[in-house]
Amino acid sequence: MSKLLLLAQKFNQFYLSGLATGESRPFIVEGIQVGLVRPDVLQQLMNFPEVFNVTSGYVELNPAFRNYEERTNKVDEVLRKLRTEQKFITLRGWRNEYYEVKREFNSHSFFKMDRCATCLFGILNYGVDITGYVRHPTLGICIWFQKRAANKQTWPGFWDNMVGGGLSVGHGILETAHKESQEEASVSKDLAKNLVSAGSVSFFYESARGLFPNTVFVFDIELPVDFTPVNADGEVEEFELLPAAQALERVCSTNFKTTSVPVVLDFFIRHGIINIENEKELLKIIELLHVPLQSIYSYRFPQILHNNVRETGENGSVRINNI
Amino acid sequence: MSKLLLLAQKFNQFYLSGLATGESRPFIVEGIQVGLVRPDVLQQLMNFPEVFNVTSGYVELNPAFRNYEERTNKVDEVLRKLRTEQKFITLRGWRNEYYEVKREFNSHSFFKMDRCATCLFGILNYGVDITGYVRHPTLGICIWFQKRAANKQTWPGFWDNMVGGGLSVGHGILETAHKESQEEASVSKDLAKNLVSAGSVSFFYESARGLFPNTVFVFDIELPVDFTPVNADGEVEEFELLPAAQALERVCSTNFKTTSVPVVLDFFIRHGIINIENEKELLKIIELLHVPLQSIYSYRFPQILHNNVRETGENGSVRINNI
Repeated sequence: MSKLLLLAQKFNQFYLSGLATGESRPFIVEGIQVGLVRPDVLQQLMNFPEVFNVTSGYVELNPAFRNYEERTNKVDEVLRKLRTEQKFITLRGWRNEYYEVKREFNSHSFFKMDRCATCLFGILNYGVDITGYVRHPTLGICIWFQKRAANKQTWPGFWDNMVGGGLSVGHGILETAHKESQEEASVSKDLAKNLVSAGSVSFFYESARGLFPNTVFVFDIELPVDFTPVNADGEVEEFELLPAAQALERVCSTNFKTTSVPVVLDFFIRHGIINIENEKELLKIIELLHVPLQSIYSYRFPQILHNNVRETGENGSVRINNI
Repeated sequence: MSKLLLLAQKFNQFYLSGLATGESRPFIVEGIQVGLVRPDVLQQLMNFPEVFNVTSGYVELNPAFRNYEERTNKVDEVLRKLRTEQKFITLRGWRNEYYEVKREFNSHSFFKMDRCATCLFGILNYGVDITGYVRHPTLGICIWFQKRAANKQTWPGFWDNMVGGGLSVGHGILETAHKESQEEASVSKDLAKNLVSAGSVSFFYESARGLFPNTVFVFDIELPVDFTPVNADGEVEEFELLPAAQALERVCSTNFKTTSVPVVLDFFIRHGIINIENEKELLKIIELLHVPLQSIYSYRFPQILHNNVRETGENGSVRINNI
């Protein structure tokens, strides 16, 4: 089978298999699904019934919490307890950097949650990646990769795109692109004018840490042949410029960050390097670069209630507290 | 609501609403779903029980037909009869140009069918579109549109992409791109070297004529400022070069071919003209440019049989010939 299709299936592991098992339960806030919770996390959340109502069909954030701040604080308390009790690997990487909890990108935020915890709830998350490339006179299109510093909380020492960053509370997309390109690769303000927005990729990855329904806004930047990125924030060990064929080999190797592969494939497809003449599975790969995350959390609370009531025959009782 | 999102919903009318109603039935060949058939078409196919087995759950091509040729001929006979009887508008546009009937792009073909009839069976179809653009020194990115000739069978007199064509039996993607760019716009062989494959768009449109699960392989070609396309096959009335903003207005007007809109939106997104700063619904639009057509026909015959048997309680009987 096509190597690239296998990769696309790998970064969509949860979309292609986990999702269908139905093991994970919708996470409901204010009657709207904003995430999915795996069984291992459900077990822990049941210990906090004043914050999470864990039923046989869903997990609901206590609807008595009145606003953004209250929800943020109540969930934060639970997460800090779970962190102290060392229940989840991902909580070791506490960031003091928050992600918004929303139904979809363009809807309002219910509360914010530490970045490292969002994968426990399958919260949709958004980032920015920049592919820095060069049109080399003899080698053709070459792209810059970074090697992540050995002390990074996630994927230490793995190869990655030239520049990337998550979308934290209070920051815009273009703003994040500019900020990260300066911090990670010392792209000057003047050079950053060449940043071109080129769409997005969406995929649903799962790892031991949790669930990652990721959408990445992708940007391209054509760089002068004599430009060399220089890291300014200590998060990068080195940079390397690779011709397309070698870059593809690197991406297929086991030391490339799996969740950064989609951006590279999308770049190579948009620039004609991966095409239907050299990749028979092109259409399936493109599908797997654009899984429908903006519409994947579609369970509405009343519908779920209705199903539960019907299943259990408990008319009038809407709370079912046993798994 | 965003004008562009409304457009994306329009060319995905069937994906967003028709599909969920369940009114259309899977079209099964050799145990595999290759299409969907609307109720109006079902009514007619029931008159040909020696070719189509119309049941309450699916429409099956007679499994006694042994090979590609036999299937092609038997279906062709029925279609020619329906054409003579003037049962469907779309059959007026008989092309003597065939499309392959396949489960997905990269699988083998069961038979071929006249292009104009594929929408009656919701057969996945594939085409090639080329966006011809100019980097104008003062106007920025401008793109060429064609006005379709008044005598075209479909969308006569509508505005359309510079070059486009369906993928007929026996032709490759790149070959079709080259052929159409010469015939439709007189792009020289030398200039055609600048064609860049840029991926694909997929959407599921419905019209009075039928169902259109379309995948278009998209190509870009940057043209010299002084190039003017000249039509060579009589299918184009005129060409016009428009700056991005005006091109977007044209695309939003009612005289632009709806099924060509996705290619323009994809081009504008890939080139940064439509971005998250000026289009809040960008992510939803991108989702609707890449609906999962390669995996949408997923009903397998045994599963359907099983359901029918269970529904009707007719153990052992697998043919249910009434609607």
